[in-house]
Amino acid sequence: MTEPLRLGIAGLGTVGAGVVKIIRQKANLLTARTGRPVVITAVSARSKDKDRGVNLSAYAWEDDPVALAKRDDVDVFVELMGGADGPAKAATEAAIAAGKDVVTANKAMLALHGQELAIAAENAGRVIRFEAAVAGGIPVVKALTEGLAGNQIERVMGVMNGTCNYILTRMQSTGLPYDQVFEEANQLGYLESDPNLDVGGIDAGHKLALLASIAFGTQVAFDGVDLEGIGQITIEDITQAADMGFRIKLLGVAQMTARGLEQRMSPCLVPADSPLGQLEGGTNMVVIEGDHVGQIVLRGAGAGEGPTASAVMSDVLDIARGIRVCTFGQPAKTLECAKAAKSTTPAPYYLRMDLHDKPGALAKIATALGEAGVSVDRMRQYGHEQTSAPVLIVTHKTTRDSLDIAIKSFAATGVLASNPVTIRIETV
Amino acid sequence: MTEPLRLGIAGLGTVGAGVVKIIRQKANLLTARTGRPVVITAVSARSKDKDRGVNLSAYAWEDDPVALAKRDDVDVFVELMGGADGPAKAATEAAIAAGKDVVTANKAMLALHGQELAIAAENAGRVIRFEAAVAGGIPVVKALTEGLAGNQIERVMGVMNGTCNYILTRMQSTGLPYDQVFEEANQLGYLESDPNLDVGGIDAGHKLALLASIAFGTQVAFDGVDLEGIGQITIEDITQAADMGFRIKLLGVAQMTARGLEQRMSPCLVPADSPLGQLEGGTNMVVIEGDHVGQIVLRGAGAGEGPTASAVMSDVLDIARGIRVCTFGQPAKTLECAKAAKSTTPAPYYLRMDLHDKPGALAKIATALGEAGVSVDRMRQYGHEQTSAPVLIVTHKTTRDSLDIAIKSFAATGVLASNPVTIRIETV
Repeated sequence: MTEPLRLGIAGLGTVGAGVVKIIRQKANLLTARTGRPVVITAVSARSKDKDRGVNLSAYAWEDDPVALAKRDDVDVFVELMGGADGPAKAATEAAIAAGKDVVTANKAMLALHGQELAIAAENAGRVIRFEAAVAGGIPVVKALTEGLAGNQIERVMGVMNGTCNYILTRMQSTGLPYDQVFEEANQLGYLESDPNLDVGGIDAGHKLALLASIAFGTQVAFDGVDLEGIGQITIEDITQAADMGFRIKLLGVAQMTARGLEQRMSPCLVPADSPLGQLEGGTNMVVIEGDHVGQIVLRGAGAGEGPTASAVMSDVLDIARGIRVCTFGQPAKTLECAKAAKSTTPAPYYLRMDLHDKPGALAKIATALGEAGVSVDRMRQYGHEQTSAPVLIVTHKTTRDSLDIAIKSFAATGVLASNPVTIRIETV
Repeated sequence: MTEPLRLGIAGLGTVGAGVVKIIRQKANLLTARTGRPVVITAVSARSKDKDRGVNLSAYAWEDDPVALAKRDDVDVFVELMGGADGPAKAATEAAIAAGKDVVTANKAMLALHGQELAIAAENAGRVIRFEAAVAGGIPVVKALTEGLAGNQIERVMGVMNGTCNYILTRMQSTGLPYDQVFEEANQLGYLESDPNLDVGGIDAGHKLALLASIAFGTQVAFDGVDLEGIGQITIEDITQAADMGFRIKLLGVAQMTARGLEQRMSPCLVPADSPLGQLEGGTNMVVIEGDHVGQIVLRGAGAGEGPTASAVMSDVLDIARGIRVCTFGQPAKTLECAKAAKSTTPAPYYLRMDLHDKPGALAKIATALGEAGVSVDRMRQYGHEQTSAPVLIVTHKTTRDSLDIAIKSFAATGVLASNPVTIRIETV
């Protein structure tokens, strides 16, 4: 096939402009690699007049992304508007109905509507590809869908929100409290307009749900993700964790268990000297464990114009080359409905609490833990304040349920001066 | 397409047996992912009677791999025999001539004959895929060919020989000399029957040449790889490098420069706290730098039954799914003939030498370096032996040529008690 592949691009923010630049600058290289020219025929965005640093005069302009999606001179609809619903979804549906392939960076739309969109596309003989929706420039969707397709996937983990990782590593390196570093990140423009998408773990949870669908052959189930953001992480926990050889990361973990699909996106302790523990700033990392391949670690920039545009282009170039893979790696109608399971996979836990500084307080904690079957790996009582005694405990592997029973039990004795902090320690 | 994809597998060593196991154990999973059954119809190996831990009775047996490659009931010829020439090449050529696709793990064959084989396959409308030939289970060929296809690749680096990395990390952790650890590795069965393939850097050089071809759109040019093995690395260098915050790795680096394609496979110093520096034992790592995506790091097991069979399966499943990509990412006839360039990219260097312990010796070194334009970052004279003074120097960035001029110049003054050791420090 040597006719040009014609793109219609909706959304000309950072990523959209990046895609336009690549296509303009690299025409020869892209043609050499795919065997056919890749061209833009039409674009759409909110404001026609905004200066985006790229010359758009050669492309037809559409105010309405739905109109763009339906154009006869568009083969692939490139959706870079964002938003789970609204224009992005309407235009994607219109594109599929009009027989176009779709490339999107929209994790929210696919995490919430991926199943229905994939079914629609597959019924129409079209593909929806979304490499740019997960972990920026890291070709992780391709690695999981194609590169490791001979494996039963056992676990997928990842640090997939650069803003949260920036905040956590910055707290660690400066000793500044969460609120102050959050404000810094805000000033630097690192946060989404709704910051809870970042720090609440929602954005990273969307990404995890997409990877879990491919990994386990299940329908994407964002509502099955156990979500916990980083807003409760204090500088004290970061410092104490570091003292014991750990780092705190907003870590996503998906694994299939006998009870169902576990998906967690929550702050976890990981060993400071592990690849995940060493991840600084906005870099992303995804760890995939397969029954034959063992552990594969992928690392790269999780956001930004170049990396995200690179991922969009990999999907576009796949389509130009005739590579057509189902959205979630197998036909959407064959994906099983995942049974969400609360996390029961045992793990060690980090536990920090303030006790009223009275004789016997520590004994009550130890007794309650023992009675709940939680055994203690390390316990440390440190620098007293006036009336309460801070205590740190690292448990051996236990279930969240056993730990909750122990906490409830020692809370009832009145020894706690504040709510205890519990953070899972993930084995990586 | 729902007819079975029929494989003929030649070579039933560790990897071949691993592939057979995956196909037998995972029939349903593979069919779900590709939409069609993947079956083995015939196999071939040197000995029919050897127990390989898998039941081969359902498959036709061929003593001659060429006969296997031509069978009417084979769609894909899976070449796992190894060897650059001989039966592997003859059978691959026969398979292509008979209209079969080829999946191979044979880095030597492709590094030496990849261009002619790819041309033959493309003329016949067939594909040759080789994910398993480079870095074991890491899906790096796919990442480079497809996942990062929107980038101009700037540099590809990698630790791609697990045996060498085992030897170097084991020397570091035990303080044992090279010969002793080499013998250990030999006893453990880690070495090829010709150990020079491993420790001479040839195997890793083959892999680098294959990645360079994809990265830069050039014909695979193994003879353009500047090869240096690890046999000259002493425990003293490993210890001194560690003291200064470095690790020694057998590192491959390929980059396109104005003067041509630089390909080096040689011992290098890398920062101990970099991803490459932290790589232990048999694990492989490939670092790819693209103009848009920035730096992508891929890490995983570089050898072994499961990881290598996983890579073979990814190629097989691609073919089952109808994914057909040129061997080196673009039609072989469009690959440019690479102009091999001696490495001129400046780098800091590590320099260790013994000086005759006479007044003025160090001054002569410093003068010679200065006259050649090589500036010194750090210099250290340490624990004297009887008659000679060991000296360590880390230079600022310089070219290999300038360094050689300096060495020649101070060697001529007669201050050296032994040949100096120079190791490039790679910026990672």
